[in-house]
Amino acid sequence: MADLNSWLEKNLAILNTVSSMDQPEGFTRLSFTAEEKAAHAAFRKVAEELGLHTLQDAAGNQWAIWKTDSRLPPVAVGSHLDTVVNGGGYDGPAGVLSALAAIKTLKGSGFQPARDIAVVCFVSEESARFGLSTIGSKAVSGKLNSREAGRMTDRNGVTVKEAAEEFGLDWSRIEEAELPAEKLACFLELHIEQGTHIEEHGAEIGIVNGVACPVRLKVRVKGMAGHTGTTPMHIRKDAFVAIAPLVTFVHERASQLSEESIQPLVATVSTVELKPNSMNVIPGEIELGIDIRSVDDMLKRSFAEEIKDFCQKAAADSGVEIHVETLINNDSIVLDPNMQQKLTGICGELGLKAHSMNSGAGHDVMNMAAKWPSGLIFIPCKDGISHHPDEFASIEDMAKGVRVITRFLEKEASL
Amino acid sequence: MADLNSWLEKNLAILNTVSSMDQPEGFTRLSFTAEEKAAHAAFRKVAEELGLHTLQDAAGNQWAIWKTDSRLPPVAVGSHLDTVVNGGGYDGPAGVLSALAAIKTLKGSGFQPARDIAVVCFVSEESARFGLSTIGSKAVSGKLNSREAGRMTDRNGVTVKEAAEEFGLDWSRIEEAELPAEKLACFLELHIEQGTHIEEHGAEIGIVNGVACPVRLKVRVKGMAGHTGTTPMHIRKDAFVAIAPLVTFVHERASQLSEESIQPLVATVSTVELKPNSMNVIPGEIELGIDIRSVDDMLKRSFAEEIKDFCQKAAADSGVEIHVETLINNDSIVLDPNMQQKLTGICGELGLKAHSMNSGAGHDVMNMAAKWPSGLIFIPCKDGISHHPDEFASIEDMAKGVRVITRFLEKEASL
Repeated sequence: MADLNSWLEKNLAILNTVSSMDQPEGFTRLSFTAEEKAAHAAFRKVAEELGLHTLQDAAGNQWAIWKTDSRLPPVAVGSHLDTVVNGGGYDGPAGVLSALAAIKTLKGSGFQPARDIAVVCFVSEESARFGLSTIGSKAVSGKLNSREAGRMTDRNGVTVKEAAEEFGLDWSRIEEAELPAEKLACFLELHIEQGTHIEEHGAEIGIVNGVACPVRLKVRVKGMAGHTGTTPMHIRKDAFVAIAPLVTFVHERASQLSEESIQPLVATVSTVELKPNSMNVIPGEIELGIDIRSVDDMLKRSFAEEIKDFCQKAAADSGVEIHVETLINNDSIVLDPNMQQKLTGICGELGLKAHSMNSGAGHDVMNMAAKWPSGLIFIPCKDGISHHPDEFASIEDMAKGVRVITRFLEKEASL
Repeated sequence: MADLNSWLEKNLAILNTVSSMDQPEGFTRLSFTAEEKAAHAAFRKVAEELGLHTLQDAAGNQWAIWKTDSRLPPVAVGSHLDTVVNGGGYDGPAGVLSALAAIKTLKGSGFQPARDIAVVCFVSEESARFGLSTIGSKAVSGKLNSREAGRMTDRNGVTVKEAAEEFGLDWSRIEEAELPAEKLACFLELHIEQGTHIEEHGAEIGIVNGVACPVRLKVRVKGMAGHTGTTPMHIRKDAFVAIAPLVTFVHERASQLSEESIQPLVATVSTVELKPNSMNVIPGEIELGIDIRSVDDMLKRSFAEEIKDFCQKAAADSGVEIHVETLINNDSIVLDPNMQQKLTGICGELGLKAHSMNSGAGHDVMNMAAKWPSGLIFIPCKDGISHHPDEFASIEDMAKGVRVITRFLEKEASL
């Protein structure tokens, strides 16, 4: 046990390509960058030390396979290693590391799997760079529209296609990463909770029923630029002034709806671009990005409509133009009940208190669930903080996750 | 007269380095860029065609001098040619062009000046690139702190010093552009009003009493980043949510104060930087830039205090940290009453209806006024629009300004 903990501690830093997890600025390994590539290389090294066979698929996903002679489809477990800007070193790495640790444990116990076990490290899970998430698991599950996705750009105008090719991929062949249904038996992901429900319920492991996919809106406001010193207050059409009350509305109304409803709802005005953003020019244009999530699809959609109504009224009141575009509006994902039952059973066997819950964040498992029986377990993270340098999950909590994965693989890879 | 108008029309485009003033994206000639340099070259060419002697001083200001044998200090008239991003082609160029047109008129009439007449095109008047305005006229009047100014940076981290040296200047010698008081007799600037007072008063020329220098504040808010999908509404410390009401407050309270007070006040939240500005991360930090102007220094300062109080309360209410820094807080400028009287007299002689007013915008004349008797006249611009591609002043209105400058130079450069 002490051995496993020190192995986890050491290899957590290795997967994060640092010598110590104490990084005041956190971790920045954006999609398809040299930093993500370096983490992938670290993953392959650790996997190979465990005697796994490694390969990269056409989308840049890393696979580490415990090979057997069996022709049964492999069981897969994994997560990702990319991060947001100044993110934490657990969102993604905890899942990849726990999967590898489970392999180490099984090997140490002399277990002989009756089918291949695959640890996967998906490429480019975070949307931070391109506004496009889970690229790798989309490709594997056949959900990637490579033409559309390839054209999306980062803040510097670099397209996904260009970045992927710089990363060493051939974008025209990206869809070859898709696996036929019969090539995998099932998929399990471990992730940090990024919330506080497990702790609040005195539990140790979260077993996820459903994933709340976001509705994302882009609000574009067109007022009138002008000199800040010479344009009288009463003739202004300041785009920022026209839309600022929306920030308060989104927060307050989401808080209210979340309290009133059975399923929680969260909503955030998370991005802003102001033009010309110059000290002596009245804001002529502004764009706000809004992220709304709930596993209650009706609730999230009706709130999106409320936001549109609010904008329409704001435009009428202030004389600016406001246009609301829906960027994303997917149904939430329900995970395989059978997998949930298995995982709950395992926690019971291991004496770990499980809490059944939903996920407010998207994960690679969402895509995998469309094609294979898939499960998602959460481990606690300190104060629910994530996407921030203060993100933290304890080695002890990770070790509990490893026990669940180990038992799961043991069961799934036995005859 | 028709001749002068067509000369103005032609040379307006030349100074703007375009073949037609119809530019849907407006004009972008930022401080110390190749675009500003090209406009300066155009200025020298037009000035030399008028028989003026041109030279560039140590700060990059362009001087075009009608040389005489007189040892009396020259009378100077001019403005600037740089612009904001997507600005207009009149803010600056109207003043430079009118000055040159007055020279052309005087030369055409056979006038023999009794002292040198200098047309000056100041470098880098706009603060759009570096947050630093009127660099050229600050240097000439001895108000440039080259060490501090040189360190200021644009959005790409390029310093003023680096940009000036790329522009061909030696920053260590920039202060050599300063002129001793005895080297100039007086200074006159013509500018577009960038407001609608002249028109509202049925006048043709604005004669400026004072220039409202801004108070500029930077409001820095530090909340807590977090995942937009997993962080419950009630535990968030969203920096944008905490400060958004300030945008409304600044606008509404400035509108109210402006109505209640004798002198108008204008205030604008004109810049915003949000971190990390990522769709799935709660805003952890935000910075707002606020520009407040009134020639009533007491009024603008007491409003800045109200903003600080508002921020203090917002911090207490929301649990985020808010820090307000005062970037600029200069006294407003009172222009020479004697110059105003002369200009009013000239308008009377010419049958032009003059309107006495304040300027809400800063101009190069502010710096010149600290050392030399200085005047500022405004010509109308369409709907008060400025710093915008729709900025427009008619050739007819410019020609009226030319008449005022011509008569002014005639008087000042006669024995």
